[in-house]
Amino acid sequence: MDREGRSGHHRPRDAIIGVNAVTICGTDLHILKGDVPETTPGTALGHEAVGTVVEVGSGVSTLAPGDRILASCISACGACRYCRIGFYGQRLAGGGWILGHTTDGMPAEFARLPFADLSTYKLPDTVSNEAAVLLADILPTSYEVGVLNGRVQPGDTVAVVGAGPIGLAAILTARLYSPSHIIAIDKAESRLQAAKHFGASATVRPDEDPAEVVRALTGGLGADVVIEAVGVPETFELCTTLVRPGGHVANIGVHGKPATLHLESLWIKNVTITTGLVDTSSTPTLLRMLESGQLDAGPMVTHRFALDEFEHAYRVFSDAADTGALKVVLTRS
Amino acid sequence: MDREGRSGHHRPRDAIIGVNAVTICGTDLHILKGDVPETTPGTALGHEAVGTVVEVGSGVSTLAPGDRILASCISACGACRYCRIGFYGQRLAGGGWILGHTTDGMPAEFARLPFADLSTYKLPDTVSNEAAVLLADILPTSYEVGVLNGRVQPGDTVAVVGAGPIGLAAILTARLYSPSHIIAIDKAESRLQAAKHFGASATVRPDEDPAEVVRALTGGLGADVVIEAVGVPETFELCTTLVRPGGHVANIGVHGKPATLHLESLWIKNVTITTGLVDTSSTPTLLRMLESGQLDAGPMVTHRFALDEFEHAYRVFSDAADTGALKVVLTRS
Amino acid sequence: MDREGRSGHHRPRDAIIGVNAVTICGTDLHILKGDVPETTPGTALGHEAVGTVVEVGSGVSTLAPGDRILASCISACGACRYCRIGFYGQRLAGGGWILGHTTDGMPAEFARLPFADLSTYKLPDTVSNEAAVLLADILPTSYEVGVLNGRVQPGDTVAVVGAGPIGLAAILTARLYSPSHIIAIDKAESRLQAAKHFGASATVRPDEDPAEVVRALTGGLGADVVIEAVGVPETFELCTTLVRPGGHVANIGVHGKPATLHLESLWIKNVTITTGLVDTSSTPTLLRMLESGQLDAGPMVTHRFALDEFEHAYRVFSDAADTGALKVVLTRS
Amino acid sequence: MDREGRSGHHRPRDAIIGVNAVTICGTDLHILKGDVPETTPGTALGHEAVGTVVEVGSGVSTLAPGDRILASCISACGACRYCRIGFYGQRLAGGGWILGHTTDGMPAEFARLPFADLSTYKLPDTVSNEAAVLLADILPTSYEVGVLNGRVQPGDTVAVVGAGPIGLAAILTARLYSPSHIIAIDKAESRLQAAKHFGASATVRPDEDPAEVVRALTGGLGADVVIEAVGVPETFELCTTLVRPGGHVANIGVHGKPATLHLESLWIKNVTITTGLVDTSSTPTLLRMLESGQLDAGPMVTHRFALDEFEHAYRVFSDAADTGALKVVLTRS
Repeated sequence: MDREGRSGHHRPRDAIIGVNAVTICGTDLHILKGDVPETTPGTALGHEAVGTVVEVGSGVSTLAPGDRILASCISACGACRYCRIGFYGQRLAGGGWILGHTTDGMPAEFARLPFADLSTYKLPDTVSNEAAVLLADILPTSYEVGVLNGRVQPGDTVAVVGAGPIGLAAILTARLYSPSHIIAIDKAESRLQAAKHFGASATVRPDEDPAEVVRALTGGLGADVVIEAVGVPETFELCTTLVRPGGHVANIGVHGKPATLHLESLWIKNVTITTGLVDTSSTPTLLRMLESGQLDAGPMVTHRFALDEFEHAYRVFSDAADTGALKVVLTRS
Repeated sequence: MDREGRSGHHRPRDAIIGVNAVTICGTDLHILKGDVPETTPGTALGHEAVGTVVEVGSGVSTLAPGDRILASCISACGACRYCRIGFYGQRLAGGGWILGHTTDGMPAEFARLPFADLSTYKLPDTVSNEAAVLLADILPTSYEVGVLNGRVQPGDTVAVVGAGPIGLAAILTARLYSPSHIIAIDKAESRLQAAKHFGASATVRPDEDPAEVVRALTGGLGADVVIEAVGVPETFELCTTLVRPGGHVANIGVHGKPATLHLESLWIKNVTITTGLVDTSSTPTLLRMLESGQLDAGPMVTHRFALDEFEHAYRVFSDAADTGALKVVLTRS
Repeated sequence: MDREGRSGHHRPRDAIIGVNAVTICGTDLHILKGDVPETTPGTALGHEAVGTVVEVGSGVSTLAPGDRILASCISACGACRYCRIGFYGQRLAGGGWILGHTTDGMPAEFARLPFADLSTYKLPDTVSNEAAVLLADILPTSYEVGVLNGRVQPGDTVAVVGAGPIGLAAILTARLYSPSHIIAIDKAESRLQAAKHFGASATVRPDEDPAEVVRALTGGLGADVVIEAVGVPETFELCTTLVRPGGHVANIGVHGKPATLHLESLWIKNVTITTGLVDTSSTPTLLRMLESGQLDAGPMVTHRFALDEFEHAYRVFSDAADTGALKVVLTRS
Repeated sequence: MDREGRSGHHRPRDAIIGVNAVTICGTDLHILKGDVPETTPGTALGHEAVGTVVEVGSGVSTLAPGDRILASCISACGACRYCRIGFYGQRLAGGGWILGHTTDGMPAEFARLPFADLSTYKLPDTVSNEAAVLLADILPTSYEVGVLNGRVQPGDTVAVVGAGPIGLAAILTARLYSPSHIIAIDKAESRLQAAKHFGASATVRPDEDPAEVVRALTGGLGADVVIEAVGVPETFELCTTLVRPGGHVANIGVHGKPATLHLESLWIKNVTITTGLVDTSSTPTLLRMLESGQLDAGPMVTHRFALDEFEHAYRVFSDAADTGALKVVLTRS
């Protein structure tokens, strides 16, 4: 993306930023595979960045050139029915998830941010680019769509299915509510190790009877909250067998196929199932906690690249099984 | 059931009632077809009654012989983890839905009610047996599992899939929250007529493109709340196509088979899906509203029988397509 | 206010409207008496209007000249911490209640509306100016600060202390939740009559022992919700004697003096007391209900004037005890 | 109290326990001073105990002789309107806070526990008498009435006014929700030290301008949650000056006098004020967390006595300013 070339198109509520750091999201891999049909070929991917404001439209009131900001994956128009209730992720009037989805995204020198007042967050000096970029999507996604939708409460037993970056961020942020047990479920031993690092109190592979592990910890009852962090039918269906009567299943995974919902056993169980795209309404709170040291997502960054090593970074990230990549961060050198 | 025969078995928290009126539930038909495997053959069915207390155990503190009471479908032990939070329908310590399910039910001269203090409600003189018996299951079920779980709010658009007794009771009780539109969906014209009587503002058959009807009323957005009141995969799946992003699907139907959950479109839509057995925690409130005339479920009773016309009543109820039966009430003559 | 004179000062997110109709708020009387010290002499009062857009700034995206709109009493910047959670009434970044408070208000030919995208609502043709102007403040105030903060639920007993316009609007909107009883309390017989018209089921003067009336309707327990709609210490203190253990007192009144809080009896009673300025987050919903005929606040308008009869209208409104004025509406002739 | 003498009076839902350990509550001191008029002279005080069941009535279903149990300060009938929604502290049918209040309490060899199924909790072997007795009142009180009523959330700033046992328990349990800051306010340096031990991140004396300390930590906004843990007018009024617009003031203190509520500044601030007696609905959760080591209230016990050293223990506890007593525990030797 070229700063001058684009600046002719921007609207009063836009800001132009120089990009300092970006990361790659599992969703980008889904787009490359063709799973997200509304993203047309040629769209620059990427919806997570930290940058420095270089220009603001006349309708932008809270930003000025030179501000170092977090560019959130969600652009909120602020005026539609959903924005008015903080559901910034749902789009009615041009907002929602647009960067790297329906308009060009951010692994470029410059990026145009629509509705910039509501889509960016000024960064305190004490928060590094690398720490901040994890707030663009993964931390608020796991916290809002997993932990808050799942209504984790002190003393709960929480099962997290999938210990990739999203699952790990769910484990990290679930701990803010002091559950008694967090059980991480994943096939990969390396991810289960990471899960323990981020706060899982127990780990189990899918072939080791996770339902039995959950029952053993809950007097046979099941988990209070189960968080789906993979996005395939099998893992979703596993979630619905782990939850206790009256419990919550919070789906974070991006799904390409339908799942089977076993209503013949679930109808009587007072279960709540939620889905969701992140709204980023928690971003200010998470940023405050990052600043105060309450949250440390740093160890999630396993690989670092220069901004122009984009193809290499993508390869490392998409070969996570071999490379052990969790989050890769690309920084302006 | 024989009063003396049984009274030898009762426990301190039991009450024995003489049965004055009962009704038949769609769930009873499911049991007769073998859909509820935990109910063993020979169990007397029926979990909805009005009766007069004839005897109370030493541990019963709020009832006395002669009291006319509603016998609720749910028996709450009051002491288990679920009862302590008002989830009376979930069983941990002998309570929950037991009458006509795991122990003998109520279309008999006498019935034994376990945990009687928490499972019965004294009836004011102004509430008839026939009006009261609809509070034993159908009204609290539709209200709690449909309207409250679905979080109906003033101004909402509510779609109710299925206009049998449960769907009609959902329409009637949804109106307590002043939604702007209630759309009833059913195959049977007679049930759609009944739906209008109970307060539906629009009716539509499944083959008339209900999704389009909902979109037309909601600016293309979808329904705020969709209530499933049938219990087959097709109707559940219809519900998930009618709901708006951020909306609620509340399942009331008793399902015998799994349904398909289209996570490939739902993952991004912030949808909440709930299931549930009634807790009857709303029964005191509904009883107060029945007494004050705020709720009138009377027109739901289409057929009346004597208590000993049980087989006939069952036939009429199970042939609802031909007989037009909604609720049938059997009364001691 | 002069259109040209002002237009030089407006900012990109402003709109200029031609004023079609306004009303006068009890708060305006408080300002005239000097009770609102942050409003400086010479400020044009008025924060409730319907108008037609004549000009929009470059940062306004949802309005165009010619749109007939409701100008809400609250201007939401949309970007501050409070706006992000729908608390539009609380000001951090220039928004909140500013019209007729900290900047010039609306009984003029033209008005400048800051943050116009978030502070206005397009009006459907079927909603008259007079009906709409009641949505600028009084209906959302009573609904949000009284009914929603008070958590009125079906079957509740609600006491409303004060049957002036705010109290009447609280009665009208409380009915959306189907309480079983609404008890209006006021000194003026004419207001109690109006309360009955808007849906009060019982009325009582303060000297007729309202606590006893409430107890009689609630088995001695007290009201589930008590709404304060006057703004003097005596009425607030009355509210805290009417509420049941576990109930809610929702204060709407604008207070100039402290009240006594009887913690020596309230500490043990699980009471929730709320205060609040309107956020107008309910305005879209209320507008929809006005359009569909679910809400009819029309009878609240007792006096009508031309826009240039402002002084006369103020006199009539401030002499409500004699004139019987509830809401007065001034319309462009 | 004499076991045989009493057993003649007990009812089917009672249990008789042999008392193993008790503690003394600040409320007991209030009673001795005459602040609680419904407690008649001669009533044995004490509403917090751990004991061993020696006898159960015929209506008790979950306890058996030999069970070691926590005797909660609240006896829940389980059947009244309040018990049905988990408001066990509010009394309608003989339950609520009765032990050591309206009936004899527990610093005796034996105690009679009404409604024993709902008023006791079986103790796992790994939880000591001394740890458990803090769950009889102080921990659930501070957690429910302070932390849960106050709606503490991750990232919040919480101010706790009063760092006696109740305030310290509020600090300890507020941490379960990961607030960013907990500010303890007390006159006594020793209590502020204890507050730091239990997790306060800042401490301040009332004469050191606590409002300024709170503003400095919150960008001038005020605390999200303020917890009153003293019970005098001055501390309550301080709370209402510390809270931010939209924040919560949760009163735990037992008050003997009214306070002044500054509605002239609070009316516009969307503040929520709650009061409450503990319901003990959180006791099972807290017990689980005690067992798993998530909660350690142990350091709150500053003095230990034998059960028959009751007078001495009372003196030490009531002279807390000199003795530094927080909780004193009396154990059967």
